[in-house]
Order: sequence, then C-alpha cells, then structure tokens
Amino acid sequence: MNKGKLYGIGVGPGDPELVTVKAVRLMKEADLIAVPDKGTGEKTALNIVKDYVAGKELLYCPTPMIRDQAALDRGYTEIADQICHLLDQGKNVCMITLGDPSIYSTYIYVHKKVLARGYEAELVPGVPSFCAVAAKLGQSLCEGSDRLLIVPASCDVTEALNVPANKVFMKAGRSIQQLQNQLRDCGLLDQAAMVENCGMENEKVWQHFADMKENSGYFSVVVVKERDEACSL
Amino acid sequence: MNKGKLYGIGVGPGDPELVTVKAVRLMKEADLIAVPDKGTGEKTALNIVKDYVAGKELLYCPTPMIRDQAALDRGYTEIADQICHLLDQGKNVCMITLGDPSIYSTYIYVHKKVLARGYEAELVPGVPSFCAVAAKLGQSLCEGSDRLLIVPASCDVTEALNVPANKVFMKAGRSIQQLQNQLRDCGLLDQAAMVENCGMENEKVWQHFADMKENSGYFSVVVVKERDEACSL
Repeated sequence: MNKGKLYGIGVGPGDPELVTVKAVRLMKEADLIAVPDKGTGEKTALNIVKDYVAGKELLYCPTPMIRDQAALDRGYTEIADQICHLLDQGKNVCMITLGDPSIYSTYIYVHKKVLARGYEAELVPGVPSFCAVAAKLGQSLCEGSDRLLIVPASCDVTEALNVPANKVFMKAGRSIQQLQNQLRDCGLLDQAAMVENCGMENEKVWQHFADMKENSGYFSVVVVKERDEACSL
Repeated sequence: MNKGKLYGIGVGPGDPELVTVKAVRLMKEADLIAVPDKGTGEKTALNIVKDYVAGKELLYCPTPMIRDQAALDRGYTEIADQICHLLDQGKNVCMITLGDPSIYSTYIYVHKKVLARGYEAELVPGVPSFCAVAAKLGQSLCEGSDRLLIVPASCDVTEALNVPANKVFMKAGRSIQQLQNQLRDCGLLDQAAMVENCGMENEKVWQHFADMKENSGYFSVVVVKERDEACSL
C-alpha cells in the first residue's frame, strides 16, 4: 500500500474567507484533519476552517503553551508518531496551523520530524496575520526601498527597535504594555498601530497604538512605520 | 446612485490555487477587474486569476518599471482617475496585485489616492511570495525567538546583512549576482536558498543559492537563515 502524505496547511489569520483555494481543496480531500490543541478549550485554527472540514475525522494534537524545550519536543515527537501511523495506513493528513506554516508555526516542528522519518510532507502557504492586520489598518507594510522587520514581541525587543526598518511585533501577549512603553521611550509610539484578534469575532483595532490602555490577548500585532504615510509617496 | 467600491486584491505568488476564497468571490462579484500592465506584454497577476475572471470586463492600468517618481505618480493619478470614474457609476472594481497588497505592491499608491478622494477602498490580503518560497523550500522563515527581515534586494543591502535576523531578499533581479557575492563575503552564502518564479511555469529552485550560476528574472526570492535548521529545534 502507498503511504499517505502530510500537508501543513496555513489557514490564514482568522477570517474563513482568507483560506486559500488550495487549502480548502486539500482539507476536503484529506482523510483526516490534525488540529493543534493548546489545552485551553479554544481551537483557533479549527474554528477558522470548521465549515470546510465538517464531517471529517479530527485528530487533536496537544501543543501546550510551555517554554520547556524538552517537553515541547517530546510532544511534537508524539504528534509525529500518531501522524506517521496514519500515513502508514495510506491516509492523507492535513495538519492545520494559523497564518502561514513558515512563520512562527508549531506545525514546522512536526513537519521536520515526519520528513526526517522518510515520509512525504508539504507546506501549504497561507496569509500571515501581519498581512491581514495591514489590510485592516488600510496601510502598507513596506513600499519602495523600505525594509520590514518581523519581531516576536514576547522576547527582548530592544535590539530590534534600533534596526532601520518598518516593524511588525507579533505575539506580544502579556508584554504588550511593555512594548508600548518601549516604543514611547524611543519616539516610535506615534507611528504605531495595533490590531487584536484580526478577522475574528473579538477583533479590536487601534489606528493609534498609544490609545490602547487595556491588556490584550495573545493574537495582537503591532505595526510601526519608520516614516509617515504621507512621506512615502 | 451609490458609489462603487475599490478592492485591492492580493492574488498570491503565482499558483492560481493560492488565491483566497475571498479574493475569488470578490472578483466574481466585481463589475470590472483592473489589471496592472508593465507594458512588457506579460501580465503576471492576470495570468494567475484568468480562470476566475473569465468573461469579466478588464481595465488595463499602465504601471511601467521606471524610477522617475514624478512620472510614476502621474501614472498612479491617471489610474485613480479612471477607477474613480467607474466608482462614480456605481461599479465595484477589483484591482489585482501580485502577492499581498501591503508588501511592495504598486496597488497601494492607487489605494491611497482613491481613499484621499473620499471613495471606499479595501485591501484584501494575499499570500506573499516569500511564504510560498519557504513552502517550496520546505523551510520555516522564523521560529521561536527568530526575527525576520524582508529586504528589497534592488537597493543597497549592506546594512541589512549585519542585522541579526533571518532574511528574505526580494526583487533582486539584475542585482542577483551581486547579492550572491555579498552573501559569500560575509559568510552567509551556505545558509542561503533561492526560488525564481515560485509557483509559475518557469519556476526554478536552488536549495543552495551558491549553485546558481546564471542570471535570474525579476521574481527571485533569496532566503538566508541565521542558524542551521538542525540547531533551531
């Protein structure tokens, strides 16, 4: 029997309509949908594609939000074990992941493990959250000779703030207030905008990040432009 | 009569299946598709969506590859004039653009002009070329605490090479050999991969950018990782 194939499907930022035609086709054709499960009860990626995968067999894959690398790696190995077992039965599996699988996805670790064991696995690109955030803000991220720096805001951002580039801060989560303070300190806060839960039901948009006073959720993206929109034409 | 609305549609990197469900719907519903026309005979964005817009009225918009900012601006003003004239007639217009409209698109200039005249205009995000390139290479662009720097390679890249981040060089075009030399000089060439015309008929993939000896086309993307894949787990 031929072995099945694994697809790592980027399902985009949140709006079910921002899934690609290819992702929809592959999910409909798949024998099984593997669903990341943070254990919080919320399954964001599944929520986006639920209408496309109605009636499909689902495999819940625990992807807890922990920092213990060894424990994370054991978790990814267990997911790879389960998926390879399905591939051995000739089943095609789509593992869904928020945004694009090449940008801060947890899927990529499963992908590498499955590939390393000699199975076929394909990355299916999706719309990254920062593109949807730019669209929501009605802004470009980069024009002409602009550079664009993507920064995980849960790590130290000090070095990144000094890079001459437009900037996107992702996954700020609990660090969002700190990021606001740091941007204020280096005079960049007035050029910063923010979108929380872009394209989802609980979306919030701040054209001026300075106006955001509350704490935000995990899915916040902050965009900082080096120069004013008006100057860039 | 109600005025029409302009949509700036990111049609993704090249594969017609990497267009989003929303883009397909909006193009099918639109009264008219505005098509960027570099004047070279090739209409890359139209080629991607041609099956989705079959039978639609097309408006060709000259977007020549020139560096004269004043001439470019006059061109965008003329396109905005034509589009606003259609919006005045209550027509909805989709202007298509390669990849995502927030990332180095020429559409964004038309968008700003149409908005500034008081019309409704919406950015519809798409899959950027670098996400499709990463998928083709089977690589992530960023993991964990990695930063990612997007660089227009037709401009001076010296400063960008020193930024501690994974890097994507876009639109290298005629500068591709120079980029190869610069990456060799700073010891990064062995971590560099390249894809030309990703997802299109004339696609070429170099897992080792060092192996690329010929000149490449405009749609080349080079990915440089700071550390080996093996170290990033």
